[in-house]
Amino acid sequence: MEALKEAIRRHGRHLGNGIIKVDAFLNHQIDPALIAACGQELARRFRHLGPTKVLTAEISGIGPALMTAYALGVPLVFARKHKPLTMGDDVFFAAAPSHTKGGDVTLLVAADYLRAGDRVLIIDDFLATGATILALARLAQAAGAQVIGIGAVIEKRFEGGRDRLRALNVPVESLAVVIGVESEQILLE
Amino acid sequence: MEALKEAIRRHGRHLGNGIIKVDAFLNHQIDPALIAACGQELARRFRHLGPTKVLTAEISGIGPALMTAYALGVPLVFARKHKPLTMGDDVFFAAAPSHTKGGDVTLLVAADYLRAGDRVLIIDDFLATGATILALARLAQAAGAQVIGIGAVIEKRFEGGRDRLRALNVPVESLAVVIGVESEQILLE
Repeated sequence: MEALKEAIRRHGRHLGNGIIKVDAFLNHQIDPALIAACGQELARRFRHLGPTKVLTAEISGIGPALMTAYALGVPLVFARKHKPLTMGDDVFFAAAPSHTKGGDVTLLVAADYLRAGDRVLIIDDFLATGATILALARLAQAAGAQVIGIGAVIEKRFEGGRDRLRALNVPVESLAVVIGVESEQILLE
Repeated sequence: MEALKEAIRRHGRHLGNGIIKVDAFLNHQIDPALIAACGQELARRFRHLGPTKVLTAEISGIGPALMTAYALGVPLVFARKHKPLTMGDDVFFAAAPSHTKGGDVTLLVAADYLRAGDRVLIIDDFLATGATILALARLAQAAGAQVIGIGAVIEKRFEGGRDRLRALNVPVESLAVVIGVESEQILLE
């Protein structure tokens, strides 16, 4: 997606250790028209697989996943990292090692919102090591649902997530691919 | 908004202590078409005031605020509750007492994304005690920006937030008003 690549070139910054800052349009401030276009493009790539639900992880996945779900006309479920008061006890959970914080993050989804028979499209802002996306896939599998595809706005190919997702045997799509970083420079495919 | 009221009647549950569960369409699972319609309606009510930015707080505010910003054609900024690695040191922060968790929650916005001259529309999923919204207003004021309006998807009028917002002297709009709760029943205006 050219508009996305242009936004990365213009606003993206490499902070070191492979951490890419795109707070200007995706992770803190959101450019709604750009992220809606990303959602429409992800929807276009997965619509033929008949997804019935989009699944993401709070927080930064919510924007692009909501726009994808809106374009597909299906509900979005965002996995929680902390159990809110409103969440009952019938909950699926999966642990994912946290890239940026260290330690594990636990993702939770109430059993009411993921069902056997659901065809789940996983959407996230980044595909990096793949750990968060694999945890989301385990949540879907715990519910007896089928993962039918994985989409990310930005893939950091140098972190190897795509290889780790291969075992899921579903299509993996990303809208912009970062192939490497050199000091402050972000190298796009 | 009749579709929103219908969703509250059908899916909403009072969990006690005034806590309303709307996880089926707003706070865990999101109904994108309904929340887009909420965003369009909030945009319609505030467009004439010329907002240049929508401001919300993570996590559950992001969906309706993004759809409002999309309808208005302006950026969305979501205040963070934890400082991510990508956030620099030039940050505005404001503390808000947490209704559901006890203690204080700190909201943070990077100075890059709130500027003097911005006309800020604050959008959140709930208007309850008003504490979160008042903290968002302090963030905007710290940046020298002007708050021009406040919109919520659901107002819990019995928690008095609207009265606390009066000092801001801006229009306050909500799309559905809960006037009270009786055991499991949610009473809508």
